[in-house]
Amino acid sequence: MVITSRDNPNVKRIAKLTKRSEARSEGVVYLEGTRLCEEALSSGQKAIEVIVAEDKISWAKEFTPDIEPMVLSRNVFTKISQTVNPQGVAIVINEPKLTSDIPSNGKDIYVVLENTQDPGNLGTIIRMADAFGLSAVIVSPTTCDPYNDKVIRATMGSVWHIPIVRKTMDECFEFFARTGTETLAMHLKGDILSAEGLKLPCAYFIGNEGEGLTDETTAKCSRLVKIPMKGKAESLNAAVAASVIGYELSKLL
Amino acid sequence: MVITSRDNPNVKRIAKLTKRSEARSEGVVYLEGTRLCEEALSSGQKAIEVIVAEDKISWAKEFTPDIEPMVLSRNVFTKISQTVNPQGVAIVINEPKLTSDIPSNGKDIYVVLENTQDPGNLGTIIRMADAFGLSAVIVSPTTCDPYNDKVIRATMGSVWHIPIVRKTMDECFEFFARTGTETLAMHLKGDILSAEGLKLPCAYFIGNEGEGLTDETTAKCSRLVKIPMKGKAESLNAAVAASVIGYELSKLL
Repeated sequence: MVITSRDNPNVKRIAKLTKRSEARSEGVVYLEGTRLCEEALSSGQKAIEVIVAEDKISWAKEFTPDIEPMVLSRNVFTKISQTVNPQGVAIVINEPKLTSDIPSNGKDIYVVLENTQDPGNLGTIIRMADAFGLSAVIVSPTTCDPYNDKVIRATMGSVWHIPIVRKTMDECFEFFARTGTETLAMHLKGDILSAEGLKLPCAYFIGNEGEGLTDETTAKCSRLVKIPMKGKAESLNAAVAASVIGYELSKLL
Repeated sequence: MVITSRDNPNVKRIAKLTKRSEARSEGVVYLEGTRLCEEALSSGQKAIEVIVAEDKISWAKEFTPDIEPMVLSRNVFTKISQTVNPQGVAIVINEPKLTSDIPSNGKDIYVVLENTQDPGNLGTIIRMADAFGLSAVIVSPTTCDPYNDKVIRATMGSVWHIPIVRKTMDECFEFFARTGTETLAMHLKGDILSAEGLKLPCAYFIGNEGEGLTDETTAKCSRLVKIPMKGKAESLNAAVAASVIGYELSKLL
């Protein structure tokens, strides 16, 4: 049966979930569009609801054969969609729990985000960490929501692949001390970044886009490093800095 | 005199310029907000018009003392502003001409963007190029507008500092052949990226976000390289890839 009214209670319920704050409070993630949905499904995420436009029933049959989809008229799908040209495909999944344990294999690289605010940066860092073989992305409680739509898009699927761990800075330092993990902060007075002279396990800290790392976190790190910059700009985008360090450290893997 | 009507002809004219397409067709750039305006002015760009909210006249006196500002009521400024919480400060500058000559000093690094579409990526690449000391950012005719507001924001001022050159791929290869510039394309079958074994001048090509480099451009490059990725994700964000190569090559400077 095709639902043709925006006032249908099921449509109202889904429309609420398209707002990230509502979805988060219910412990779910709303994903829209073929790429986002298919990436999540192929990574083992289970759809708990499937919503398709009437011309996309075949998509649901192919990708979520075990679930009865909610079928909306094109018009209604477009009304609840958050995108400009909706593809007519959406799923709801349970929000993955942020891992509470930091994984450890003795040769780990961790990127620790103290207070990343830009969803594009967070997503790009998650994607980079997955590409360079980092063990986990560790996010502070104040870092932006990893299941924000913009973050998920920027990860190109990596959000489903690499452990994302939420920890306070104190918890991080306690773990790193216990496991003999070197801790790096970027600082203008630091040593020039180079894989030579560093060893794993190693964690590096990336601060807020505008303010950088807090002095407190910088002071607790075992080592200060700097990315050599031979040009005129004095700083790099946070995701670029995180990526250059991830690339350099991954030479030790 | 404070302009209090949205229908004032001068206000209408400025409101048009807040749309990038209109500003471009008039050969100007509209910049709003203290950071963007001050970055441009301190980099030597000249304001040809200054627009401030009535409570920001002191800003104009400080930063653009030679120009009579157009003073708008807060209400009118907010109406024409493209931002959610307008700071009440805007300038119009002449659009810098994209350089037509590729600068050359014999030890150059160039990043060449074949068809970059995302303004955030383009801005991040311009900022990175300025930080790592590249000689120029070369953009294809299809690459997105460098004076797009989102690009300018992401460059953090570097858009005013590093030469941005618009060239076709054919023009690039002709120049690189003439100057003995090594040309790098990323390819899965390439050599592992390393500054050792490479020499300057050197240009590297970055393709479109979705499709990568065209086969035609890849085939014309003198050398194929790959960024080693020891994790599971198979690709990197275009700005991250450009930054890692820029970082590695800058070791040769």
